[in-house]
Amino acid sequence: MTDKQQDLCYLSIPQAGRLIASRQLSPVELTRAFLERIQAVDQRVKAYVTLMADSALAEARTAEGEVLHGRYRGPLHGIPIALKDLYDTRGVRTTAQSRVLERRVPSEDATVVRKLRDAGGVILGKVAMHEFALGGPATSLFEQARNPWNLDHVTGGSSSGSAAAVAAGLCMGSLGSDTGGSIRGPASLCGIVGLKPTYGRVSRQGVIPLSWSLDHCGPMTWTVEDAAILLGVIAGADPSDPTASNAPVPDYTQALREDVKGLTIGVPRHYFFNPEVVDAQVLGVVEAALTEMERLGARVQEVTIPSLEHASAANTVMMIGQGYTYHRKDLINQPQSFGETVRLRLSMGALFTTADYVQAQRLRSRIRREFAQALQGVDLIACPTSLNTAATFADVDPLIAVRTPSFTAPFNQTGMPAISVPCGFNSDGLPVGLQLAGRPFDEPTMLRVAYTYQQSSRWYEKRPGV
Amino acid sequence: MTDKQQDLCYLSIPQAGRLIASRQLSPVELTRAFLERIQAVDQRVKAYVTLMADSALAEARTAEGEVLHGRYRGPLHGIPIALKDLYDTRGVRTTAQSRVLERRVPSEDATVVRKLRDAGGVILGKVAMHEFALGGPATSLFEQARNPWNLDHVTGGSSSGSAAAVAAGLCMGSLGSDTGGSIRGPASLCGIVGLKPTYGRVSRQGVIPLSWSLDHCGPMTWTVEDAAILLGVIAGADPSDPTASNAPVPDYTQALREDVKGLTIGVPRHYFFNPEVVDAQVLGVVEAALTEMERLGARVQEVTIPSLEHASAANTVMMIGQGYTYHRKDLINQPQSFGETVRLRLSMGALFTTADYVQAQRLRSRIRREFAQALQGVDLIACPTSLNTAATFADVDPLIAVRTPSFTAPFNQTGMPAISVPCGFNSDGLPVGLQLAGRPFDEPTMLRVAYTYQQSSRWYEKRPGV
Repeated sequence: MTDKQQDLCYLSIPQAGRLIASRQLSPVELTRAFLERIQAVDQRVKAYVTLMADSALAEARTAEGEVLHGRYRGPLHGIPIALKDLYDTRGVRTTAQSRVLERRVPSEDATVVRKLRDAGGVILGKVAMHEFALGGPATSLFEQARNPWNLDHVTGGSSSGSAAAVAAGLCMGSLGSDTGGSIRGPASLCGIVGLKPTYGRVSRQGVIPLSWSLDHCGPMTWTVEDAAILLGVIAGADPSDPTASNAPVPDYTQALREDVKGLTIGVPRHYFFNPEVVDAQVLGVVEAALTEMERLGARVQEVTIPSLEHASAANTVMMIGQGYTYHRKDLINQPQSFGETVRLRLSMGALFTTADYVQAQRLRSRIRREFAQALQGVDLIACPTSLNTAATFADVDPLIAVRTPSFTAPFNQTGMPAISVPCGFNSDGLPVGLQLAGRPFDEPTMLRVAYTYQQSSRWYEKRPGV
Repeated sequence: MTDKQQDLCYLSIPQAGRLIASRQLSPVELTRAFLERIQAVDQRVKAYVTLMADSALAEARTAEGEVLHGRYRGPLHGIPIALKDLYDTRGVRTTAQSRVLERRVPSEDATVVRKLRDAGGVILGKVAMHEFALGGPATSLFEQARNPWNLDHVTGGSSSGSAAAVAAGLCMGSLGSDTGGSIRGPASLCGIVGLKPTYGRVSRQGVIPLSWSLDHCGPMTWTVEDAAILLGVIAGADPSDPTASNAPVPDYTQALREDVKGLTIGVPRHYFFNPEVVDAQVLGVVEAALTEMERLGARVQEVTIPSLEHASAANTVMMIGQGYTYHRKDLINQPQSFGETVRLRLSMGALFTTADYVQAQRLRSRIRREFAQALQGVDLIACPTSLNTAATFADVDPLIAVRTPSFTAPFNQTGMPAISVPCGFNSDGLPVGLQLAGRPFDEPTMLRVAYTYQQSSRWYEKRPGV
């Protein structure tokens, strides 16, 4: 890999897009650079589980030819993208990192994969994840991705490879999925941007489900602008997914302005800033980010969400209850095909009663109402994305998610859009994420604030040395 | 009771309202007529469980005084109404016909009871119901109401007294509640109008729940116009009930026009007209009603709702699952306080798994989508309300509801507005009901069709001889 190739891998999507549109950069050259870098780096990072080098180069050649013939498809034209291995890819093994699906080869692309291809995107390959979007890093069909900031540390999950690939410069953006924080958590631990859109904003057709009422598809990228571009491509109605909303899709890049004046950011400190729960360095870094927001002209205001402390429990019951329903037959017929973590966690679903589930739903309604009320007075909610920075593989407990509160799951309960944006590092050089969550379908305001903060803080200028 | 008093009890609400507004009829005289008729007839019908004679007369006197002082509140001014005994009434025992609540006296009126009083309504008393809106007619705190068309026959449930009181001329209208058909079923078996509004159209604050996501409050009356008037009074937003919609409340009586030309009525014959399930005389009477609709200018068209056959099962799992959640503590601590039917039916909820519940919800979403799609091509759905006419007390099996399909429950799943309107009698003189169901919040179209049919068929001219 040449220095020039490495530089190409560190371009933002609009930087690369401008070069491609003006014929200064060939999509083939760009794709080759990524394939070379994957070759050089991914033996250490372990982001990719299935590399699609041949088809990627073919797509890049098509993209190149189209530009040369004056047919430029837009900002994703010729941009290399990676997919969490639960997005169906026509003719390419899609496993959700489970032995149950070890030999599964879909005959159709997922709707969003088709949208990426239609927009000129180049699919580099399928990346690692936690088994069935639920397991820990230990028990999976493939090796697990490693954190590019320190390879002894985990990436978080479940979109582990999607985060690692972006952080290590092994793609220009990736798709993850998020049922309790699986986009935002690894984004924060890997120092990248992770965006969970509003529930219903992005089709889930052709995406292996964990929990129908909590699953969200979304982009993971190096910058907020990159995320806005990817979201614009994948958002929108889908006749084959009845949960996909018909609400019109705005131009998300138009919303990016370096101005947050007049906006109010609500902070439920009573829950998200408890020093007995959250790491002290994480708290310090996130508090500094809020101070920076104020300096930029936003108002920061305390808000109270009384039922927030129950949100994680409600999410666990609903997520596991629905996940168990989906996997029940396989759990009974081929339990040995599941990793221990996933088998144990999913099997909890058999023990939850209908009354547990109904109470979880009632809590969900209440939490949704409380956030809706808070959002009448503030434009966004802000908090740390994760309680800690990335643990080492040696320290991680795959069942810990059952015992600790989640700062991301409340926004799966409410369906609000939420984004994790890098906001600094701890003393060991591990990244910290700031989470912003907005009103349903008001991704523009959320993206604008995240963009303004990112342009000011410029954490994106620091890259991991992997 | 004089003949004149009996005539007063058979007035429609607008007939009585015009006489009251023009000072030709005193609300006190009207209320006394009903109290006399209850005295004379209700020992046989058993509609009332708690008569509120003193407060009713006091309210009637207030209503009389207001008219004399030129303060006429509108079409419910001075009109005597009965309440199913699960509507909270300030200072008056409210039991849901259960020994668990035998001594329960609410300190506040339910929201809709307050609305009735604010509109000048006179509350005559609380009427019988099936225990906790779920039990059969056999096991209850009070005796069960009897069918005014034949006292050996049941009224159906759970709004048994609400139906019997209207049919026997013991009130001008009543409120029932409907979780799987508890308004529409007894309305059809007692030859009256029963209206389940759109989910969220009417506040449920202060109404003892069975199942939060399926419960509906609504009016039961002698005519469609009476129902439109009552719905107009009780509908609307309620800050104390977050499920009550803020959608504006139209003038439902304005919607009543004797014209159905240009409207299309969809009939899912594949499910609702199966001669192996539905009584032949019921089918004949309902088919004749559809022919009459066509004669009046409506188009009748076959529609297909593929998942309809699963709707009753989904409703049972959700209704019982939520009901068990609500009653769990009492079922454990004082099982002897429940009647056997309710105890057995609710206890099923302990056996349903979370997976059963999740699958029921998925079915619910699918059924909702299928009806929404059908309603793009038709204005209303029509079908028989009940499979049979009223059984005798000797023949009724309290657990039969678990085994037979319900023609009303699908519209609790979808939340669509639905009405049962009398459409004839079987050879034993027992009434048959036609069910019409419309688009969410489009009660006006549903009322207009029901009104047109009722004005043409004039079944309301025949009264039971009780």
